[in-house]
Amino acid sequence: MSVPTPDVLPAPDATVTVGAYLATRLRQLDGPHVFGLPGDFSLGLLDEMLAVPGIEWVGCTNELNAAYAADAYARGRRGLAAVVTTYGVGELSAMNGIAGSYAEDVPVVLVSGMPPTKARAEGLLLHHTLVDGDHDHFVRAYREVTAAGTVLRAATAVGQIDRLLLTAINEGKPVYLGIPADVAVARVPAANLALPLRRSPSDPTSIQQFRAALVALLAAEPSLTVLAGPRVHRRRLEGELAKLADLPGVRIATQAGAKAMLDERHPASLGTYMGAMTRSAATRDAVDGAPLLVLAGTTLSDVLTGLFTHRFSPEDAVELGFESARIGASLFHGLHMDDSLRILHEVVAERGFPPLPPLPKEPRPGVPDAPDSDVLTQGQFWAEVQQWMPEGVTAIADAGTALFGALALHMPHNSDLLAQPVWSSIGYTLPATLGISLAVPEHRSVLFIGDGAAQLTIQELATILHGGHTPIIVLINNAGYTIERAIQSPHAVYQDITSWDWAALPSVLAPGVPVLTTTVRTREALALALVQARERTDRLVLVEAVLDPSDAPELLVELGRGAARANGAPPPAG
Amino acid sequence: MSVPTPDVLPAPDATVTVGAYLATRLRQLDGPHVFGLPGDFSLGLLDEMLAVPGIEWVGCTNELNAAYAADAYARGRRGLAAVVTTYGVGELSAMNGIAGSYAEDVPVVLVSGMPPTKARAEGLLLHHTLVDGDHDHFVRAYREVTAAGTVLRAATAVGQIDRLLLTAINEGKPVYLGIPADVAVARVPAANLALPLRRSPSDPTSIQQFRAALVALLAAEPSLTVLAGPRVHRRRLEGELAKLADLPGVRIATQAGAKAMLDERHPASLGTYMGAMTRSAATRDAVDGAPLLVLAGTTLSDVLTGLFTHRFSPEDAVELGFESARIGASLFHGLHMDDSLRILHEVVAERGFPPLPPLPKEPRPGVPDAPDSDVLTQGQFWAEVQQWMPEGVTAIADAGTALFGALALHMPHNSDLLAQPVWSSIGYTLPATLGISLAVPEHRSVLFIGDGAAQLTIQELATILHGGHTPIIVLINNAGYTIERAIQSPHAVYQDITSWDWAALPSVLAPGVPVLTTTVRTREALALALVQARERTDRLVLVEAVLDPSDAPELLVELGRGAARANGAPPPAG
Repeated sequence: MSVPTPDVLPAPDATVTVGAYLATRLRQLDGPHVFGLPGDFSLGLLDEMLAVPGIEWVGCTNELNAAYAADAYARGRRGLAAVVTTYGVGELSAMNGIAGSYAEDVPVVLVSGMPPTKARAEGLLLHHTLVDGDHDHFVRAYREVTAAGTVLRAATAVGQIDRLLLTAINEGKPVYLGIPADVAVARVPAANLALPLRRSPSDPTSIQQFRAALVALLAAEPSLTVLAGPRVHRRRLEGELAKLADLPGVRIATQAGAKAMLDERHPASLGTYMGAMTRSAATRDAVDGAPLLVLAGTTLSDVLTGLFTHRFSPEDAVELGFESARIGASLFHGLHMDDSLRILHEVVAERGFPPLPPLPKEPRPGVPDAPDSDVLTQGQFWAEVQQWMPEGVTAIADAGTALFGALALHMPHNSDLLAQPVWSSIGYTLPATLGISLAVPEHRSVLFIGDGAAQLTIQELATILHGGHTPIIVLINNAGYTIERAIQSPHAVYQDITSWDWAALPSVLAPGVPVLTTTVRTREALALALVQARERTDRLVLVEAVLDPSDAPELLVELGRGAARANGAPPPAG
Repeated sequence: MSVPTPDVLPAPDATVTVGAYLATRLRQLDGPHVFGLPGDFSLGLLDEMLAVPGIEWVGCTNELNAAYAADAYARGRRGLAAVVTTYGVGELSAMNGIAGSYAEDVPVVLVSGMPPTKARAEGLLLHHTLVDGDHDHFVRAYREVTAAGTVLRAATAVGQIDRLLLTAINEGKPVYLGIPADVAVARVPAANLALPLRRSPSDPTSIQQFRAALVALLAAEPSLTVLAGPRVHRRRLEGELAKLADLPGVRIATQAGAKAMLDERHPASLGTYMGAMTRSAATRDAVDGAPLLVLAGTTLSDVLTGLFTHRFSPEDAVELGFESARIGASLFHGLHMDDSLRILHEVVAERGFPPLPPLPKEPRPGVPDAPDSDVLTQGQFWAEVQQWMPEGVTAIADAGTALFGALALHMPHNSDLLAQPVWSSIGYTLPATLGISLAVPEHRSVLFIGDGAAQLTIQELATILHGGHTPIIVLINNAGYTIERAIQSPHAVYQDITSWDWAALPSVLAPGVPVLTTTVRTREALALALVQARERTDRLVLVEAVLDPSDAPELLVELGRGAARANGAPPPAG
């Protein structure tokens, strides 16, 4: 997140509307794009917000898609994103997306334009309510998937907006902000806008205590192994990680949700760690057998630990979180990850570990020995993608074959991988491509998505095309939910989806907008299409790759077997 | 709802899986179609459910659409519908649809395939969770939009499934059923399936007391006016209404959410009542000034009362609800609407009111006097639709210009109008067309939907086409959210949507499936297209009608002004 600057210097007695106040805060927090759809209870709010210079409206095709796009935007900018919806119908549609932001530590503010305060107080039987006189059902439902939430009153709006946005950026979690129609246009003092919001700094005492404990700990250790997780990415601390990697005696593995944080060609890089599903035995042993392991911003979820097959003990590891750190049973509160990582670097540099021998490199996705057949295989597909993947891209991989293929890739320099390995909501990545294209325009977005997933959220392709974005979309057409086929009942009727003419879709959703579409069925055709896609930087490129419904990346096959086991056999009825 | 018959006669010691038990209950309750998408926590559940003979899977393109389709299916069959989703990502996406079922009194069971009981108990950090160890966030969130909900255990599954389904059919509300993966395949006794579920009968004492009170009340009254609302439709009590209409001294108006319940050509029909927005002054006076008014299954929400401009006093009216009735301050509990309406008919027949003079008829949607122009107007559009509308259709109208145009229509004999005037979630009707086509195949579905609304849920058009359904879809292309333009800031950037090639869309979503598509821009072309559409009963017909973005039906203009007023002016900041 960039340091906010006080670009607004209002007169001491100036006022702004609540909507304008909120929008100015968003712009100060480097989140000028506002995602959403209008509704009758949010029109005044939107008028006030969009009147603030620098604020840009990103109209989406539905609210779930808007929430997905905002989530990816926040990930890309490493800052806050806002979704504005109308009451009830709008906000509830967005809930899955906001829950995903919670699960994956992304600060998003869901703003709901609500009925006026008086109507709320009287419990009027309005449309978009449950007509039971209770207007608070949805703010209560949102408590389950946000770190904080409130319905604004004009008298306390300034403080409440600030409190919620600070919660979002400090905790890296979504928050809920309900704004009644009358409050949105109410005027509040502007003076406070001269003091931009920022994350609270670390507690100096915690810094001191943590450093002392770390010095004592490292004195007795021969080396340091770091497992870096998604939260390091959220805070844009890849630089700290790289500095640490340059010190002797340090090795760094990353979690699947945080690939490409450290250049995988770096001598200290251990590549991706996923417990028993780690591709390299040396990497697995290095992490599981580390004399001293630091868990930096990790999430120890099923997928990220290879279905809980990690052999290290989290309790024995040093843990660095967003707002605290832990050594043994000692918790250092108010110690932020940027400081804890910086201190770790300093203490390791002072300690001066002896150098470690070089490690055998993680194998690249295998190029199958079998000669090319008529049918493109998953093995061939990912080998071609690996060979082709250029620098300067954000790869985006939908939950399913796309994710588990992409996780085995070595990402090139100056690249990033966007995925939802924890929340794993299929269809997320198509709207996410809109969000990331706005957030990181200097990268080209390369989306890998299955046909089943793409159908959930396809309408956002129109917004991407009309917005002039030029991602490469590689659509894996394998006639259904191959990730589920890998787990159970591959021939069940519910695994099938309807077949679409994918190549014709862009011109229907955006007539007149130039696109390049290709359908490939062989390895050669894929290779050619990818080269073409990279060259045509002036337009969206859709590559439809036709693959067998039962073919899946190795990692997914393995995970599918594990998931089937985990769902278990029936217990006897009681 | 048809009376369930005990088609399953299991041996006394037979067992079935929990999934099969649930599916058998759904089939017994006349809801054999199951809507949804698969997910790894629901595969075992789906396998068990779909193994039950007669159960049909309706795979949808996303969970919100599945919930919408199920809602319409339940409305069409006047019974229960089921949506099956996976945990977290799936169920949360469906929430807006389920809340709509709550607001509009539709019994839908949302079934969530959850992680296994042991994983729940241990709080495992699984994918699709918020990785905080709490697996109950979503069942709690669902409490806000359902009448009841639980997470099943094998030992009590039989009783709990029955309890929840009974709640849904008795209260006409959605319920939430979480089924852990291990419980779905656990075996439970089958014997109870020999006793099909049914709505509980009325309390005989309440029946007696209500009848006596009604006799006393009617003795002093000269006539009876009934305002019939959506709940009469939910219970398929149009027959009782028609019988009542045939008695002298009775007049019947319907609410906008319950149009077409009584043939509008019937001499006793007052047409549609909406407070000050009632089209006919005589209708308004008849309801507002009725000596004795009966509110039968009404919802007194903003839209249905013309923004609370009704002048009758609900407290003075007799009220007939799903499970109770009220006369004055006396509540007759456990008195079901089918009984209360039947008793009303009997008592009115015994009382023998003198006949009433015929009423002036409600005006039909006006045919504009202006000569035809190059541009099709909303006035011309609805006049043509009125003239064309055949018998034997279910018209479906999305919230927006479509709904407020359709509300002014006189619906022909043997027809129905499906809409969401209370919840008003745009995009609802496209998946609803799937649900109603499955529920009422003997009617042809005729959908009226705006382009903005259609974009929210467009992917379900693929399911409709591939499923061989043959609705007529009239897409009102007016380049954005005209309903919002009618309220405020018609030229704001957020009112615009991206432009699509609508006529080309069906063949892209369902290559090879025969369709007829037309784009019309004049009144003559619309008339011709509608006639063609009626003739081509063998295929889906898409009529794209291009209308001006600022043109809106009269009723919407009026409502828009009222809504803007209701959102109000800003109060002073505190």
